[in-house]
Amino acid sequence: MDYTFHETMRIPYAAMRDWTQKLYMAVGMNEHDAWICADTAVMADARGVYSHGCMRTPIYCNRIMQGGTSASAQPSIEKERVATAIVDGHNAMGQVVAVYAMKIAIEKARQCGTASVSIKRGNHFGTCAYFAEMAVREDMIGFAWTNGGPVMAPWGGRERQLGNNPFAIALPCGKKRSIVLDMAQSVVARGKVVMAMKTKTPIPDTWALDTEGCPTTDPVAGYWGTVRPSGDYKGSGLSILVSMISSILPGAAIGATLVDLYEQLAVPFNAGQLLQVIDISAMTDLEEFKDRMDDYVEYLKNGKKAKGFTEIFVPGELEHIMYEKQMKEGVEYPLEIIQEYHALCEKLGVEKMA
Amino acid sequence: MDYTFHETMRIPYAAMRDWTQKLYMAVGMNEHDAWICADTAVMADARGVYSHGCMRTPIYCNRIMQGGTSASAQPSIEKERVATAIVDGHNAMGQVVAVYAMKIAIEKARQCGTASVSIKRGNHFGTCAYFAEMAVREDMIGFAWTNGGPVMAPWGGRERQLGNNPFAIALPCGKKRSIVLDMAQSVVARGKVVMAMKTKTPIPDTWALDTEGCPTTDPVAGYWGTVRPSGDYKGSGLSILVSMISSILPGAAIGATLVDLYEQLAVPFNAGQLLQVIDISAMTDLEEFKDRMDDYVEYLKNGKKAKGFTEIFVPGELEHIMYEKQMKEGVEYPLEIIQEYHALCEKLGVEKMA
Repeated sequence: MDYTFHETMRIPYAAMRDWTQKLYMAVGMNEHDAWICADTAVMADARGVYSHGCMRTPIYCNRIMQGGTSASAQPSIEKERVATAIVDGHNAMGQVVAVYAMKIAIEKARQCGTASVSIKRGNHFGTCAYFAEMAVREDMIGFAWTNGGPVMAPWGGRERQLGNNPFAIALPCGKKRSIVLDMAQSVVARGKVVMAMKTKTPIPDTWALDTEGCPTTDPVAGYWGTVRPSGDYKGSGLSILVSMISSILPGAAIGATLVDLYEQLAVPFNAGQLLQVIDISAMTDLEEFKDRMDDYVEYLKNGKKAKGFTEIFVPGELEHIMYEKQMKEGVEYPLEIIQEYHALCEKLGVEKMA
Repeated sequence: MDYTFHETMRIPYAAMRDWTQKLYMAVGMNEHDAWICADTAVMADARGVYSHGCMRTPIYCNRIMQGGTSASAQPSIEKERVATAIVDGHNAMGQVVAVYAMKIAIEKARQCGTASVSIKRGNHFGTCAYFAEMAVREDMIGFAWTNGGPVMAPWGGRERQLGNNPFAIALPCGKKRSIVLDMAQSVVARGKVVMAMKTKTPIPDTWALDTEGCPTTDPVAGYWGTVRPSGDYKGSGLSILVSMISSILPGAAIGATLVDLYEQLAVPFNAGQLLQVIDISAMTDLEEFKDRMDDYVEYLKNGKKAKGFTEIFVPGELEHIMYEKQMKEGVEYPLEIIQEYHALCEKLGVEKMA
């Protein structure tokens, strides 16, 4: 939402997805799996969540080429009960594993009313929202929790022991747009501290701690230190809990055993995730539920505004609005991403975009 | 944890529970239900969470006497599937309804691997942790989400449209103490703003917004305004989502239809809650899971400390330590609470404590 691009071009959603799909196929993925990786990326961009979109295609492809992630592996169920499963990702792309696992969760929730599916030997999977929203399209409530690479200290600490460990919860509305909360546990992404360091701009003291564990306005000190958890001990506690339910439960990597996505290209990540689904119709009348959701959204949006605000936005609304705009006008891309795609095309023998 | 009592006395856990149970029986509850209300209250106190302990007994008893809450109603299942249920609390005490609902969730998780139980026509139920920990004692993971009375504005607003909507997630360890995160979505409880107003102490500008929706250090302005969400838009978003999954799902009160617990003593609250359980053994080997939990807690606690900190505490640890101390020494109570109990004893014809 707050990215400032200097030179950009707009590319239609489907064109960018097709192009991205071809890149993934060129590194060995089948058409179906490559489509998933492409769609999750372009969807993130279309919603303005560029940090989790096509800018990651080069690193994901690199990891496949270096052997850190498998292009051809297929996830499978390791163990299941009627409303649960543990999915072994066999080191396939995280998006492929999570779509597979979410489909199982939805099917089980349809039968049982609710389901929980754990993922082990998965990978970084892009935005949590994408998978939570798969449930919404089936008139269900979706939850997606994931562990991430270490960027944050636990409250009282000064070492990067925790990821910012995002999760998403999504629910359908009736006439209104669906509600999707997708949040990480740090005040800002580490990328913002990196950007401030590059542009030599001081940072708010709420963003990062230095290597002594003290708040700092110096982006260099913050870069070598840790990003601060949102709400201090609350964000720290939530991050710890998310890592436990997403990674300790299935036996995925956690803490000291986590791999650096960008540095250890040849080493499997063993990401863990937890997906949960509740079938709304198991609890209540679906249409009544949707009416109640619409009414509540209306109630919140009609609240009196704080000084300096002209509108109250509900979770996911800004991303939906951005998506609708970009579906009409094309998805805006900074030229740097297009140039990286062209470089990747040359390397892989894929046709460049006209 | 940060309560300062002037004059206190220590009362053994069981004695305070028995006394509290008698008070609830005197307002018409049966022995079993009164025990639940007493145990949840004394447990909160023993852990240092005094805001949700016996200091609420007078208001809960008053609500029963005024007809706002039913002493004799028994919760029932309205609708169920193999892994879900919706429980109608019939306006019984929230603690009674939630214990009933959590037992169902545990039993269903034992059979299906996971379960979700929604509560409607419930009441304020004390701490979320109590119910999440019921799952932990069965070697399961417990989640408890609840909607609360309006104290907070949504991000961009200035009206009390949201509760601070706490939730708890709890997991068992092996040799270590279990992990329990129980957090509300405001930076501080509204009670802290009230206390600062009484003592005429300025408040940090992170605690509250005035009636214009601007941060304030004036506790009176904060009292008439709203408490601030933790992490601004993050806490606001999380609060909205918790209210949706806990109250819109089962059709409980939300937004403008919420009753003031302290002012509308004769009006049923219609609280909504969501309880979720995952049976660990459905996903992984239980002993291996516990070993992994122990190792991770050890890893976090061994992290280098930030300046000014001598120890890193994991979620729930401080409450467990306080509980262990108070089980040995007796639970510390401010004389005000004991005096309120004595007044209630006189009113109800219950024997006072020696």
